[in-house]
Amino acid sequence: MSTMVPTLPLQHLNPHIGDGSGMTGQGSIKSTNITAIESRVTLQDRIKRSGHSGGVLWFTGLSGSGKSTLAIELERRLFNIGYNVFVLDGDNVRHGLSSNLGFSHDDRTENIRRIGEVASLFASAGFIVIAAFISPYREDRDRAREASADDFHEIYVKADLSLCESRDPKGLYEKARRGEIADFTGISAPYEAPDAPEFVVDTGQLDVAKSVTALAEYVAANFVQQQD
Amino acid sequence: MSTMVPTLPLQHLNPHIGDGSGMTGQGSIKSTNITAIESRVTLQDRIKRSGHSGGVLWFTGLSGSGKSTLAIELERRLFNIGYNVFVLDGDNVRHGLSSNLGFSHDDRTENIRRIGEVASLFASAGFIVIAAFISPYREDRDRAREASADDFHEIYVKADLSLCESRDPKGLYEKARRGEIADFTGISAPYEAPDAPEFVVDTGQLDVAKSVTALAEYVAANFVQQQD
Repeated sequence: MSTMVPTLPLQHLNPHIGDGSGMTGQGSIKSTNITAIESRVTLQDRIKRSGHSGGVLWFTGLSGSGKSTLAIELERRLFNIGYNVFVLDGDNVRHGLSSNLGFSHDDRTENIRRIGEVASLFASAGFIVIAAFISPYREDRDRAREASADDFHEIYVKADLSLCESRDPKGLYEKARRGEIADFTGISAPYEAPDAPEFVVDTGQLDVAKSVTALAEYVAANFVQQQD
Repeated sequence: MSTMVPTLPLQHLNPHIGDGSGMTGQGSIKSTNITAIESRVTLQDRIKRSGHSGGVLWFTGLSGSGKSTLAIELERRLFNIGYNVFVLDGDNVRHGLSSNLGFSHDDRTENIRRIGEVASLFASAGFIVIAAFISPYREDRDRAREASADDFHEIYVKADLSLCESRDPKGLYEKARRGEIADFTGISAPYEAPDAPEFVVDTGQLDVAKSVTALAEYVAANFVQQQD
């Protein structure tokens, strides 16, 4: 940052595109003897490079259904074969973006809303983003869907409550049964199963490897661009 | 999803990693005759693939300083030479993630907090994320820095208020001067310039092309991994 030659001021800029003022839109470009303004990198640009489209795989299901494990396994599988893929889950969201939210119904709704928006941003950056959250309320999931429109894929990670409760490796169901955890989905708070998910993985029937294979096949069928 | 052979239930799962319960941590894996659990894709895995590290370029400066234009131009420049790069700005944040926030001091603080967390997520996904926001308050920027720690680079997009006001392509400064926009940074709300930014781009001195070149050189020097 030395050799600063006073030169053409940025009269051609449109500094109010996205400056946080909430007022957006393209201004006219007035100067002519300047470097051409590049257009924003589009999702199409990114798809052309990666060979696959961006989108959201929204994993919903009971605690213990296997969402996080399948998310992490699927991420690894897809990453290893060259996909741009990223997992959003409680680990990287609850301590950051949603650290100022609790577990009331309103806070859960806002949590899922934020995650839906972040997932949409990742999808627009060309990622296959795997969002693994219980997300028990249909209305909340529908709102997450709206944020990503056609790029949203609801994946129901299905397992009976009794099976999830029998897995219970950290004893959360047991605590919930004893009343030590309030509003625990499936025990003391409702789980609204998806009406029309794009895909169902029944982890009561399939083991991890088979579940991941089924998911990877779904991704290949739905995200890979035809070369022509 | 046909041919479902009842098989090993997911006893080896640790379904409470990141299930949104706020209770995280590795459980012990008890089964042995199962597919090995893959580890989560790490930032190092991503860096190894892309050849550059992830991080946040946080552009701060007055309205009209050129943040968004430089962000979009830099994104294009870096994308074209193979970087994973993404711009966060008012266009993709204010209508989504922060759509339930206004422009009060508290809401601006929460807006910047959320953006800082999302930027951190993108950085952990291996992206160079360019966040272009006025972000007038030092305290807010410092909190955004905390979210990404050493991967945070504060870039001061510097231009005198008088220059920004003379650019004013959408007449916002004029409106602010007439009192038609409340709390307008530089006019009726403060701008706290960075004390020790990692980099300064003086758009009163450098045109767009030179500014972008300076930024791209900064990125190359700070994000590209040495091959050895």
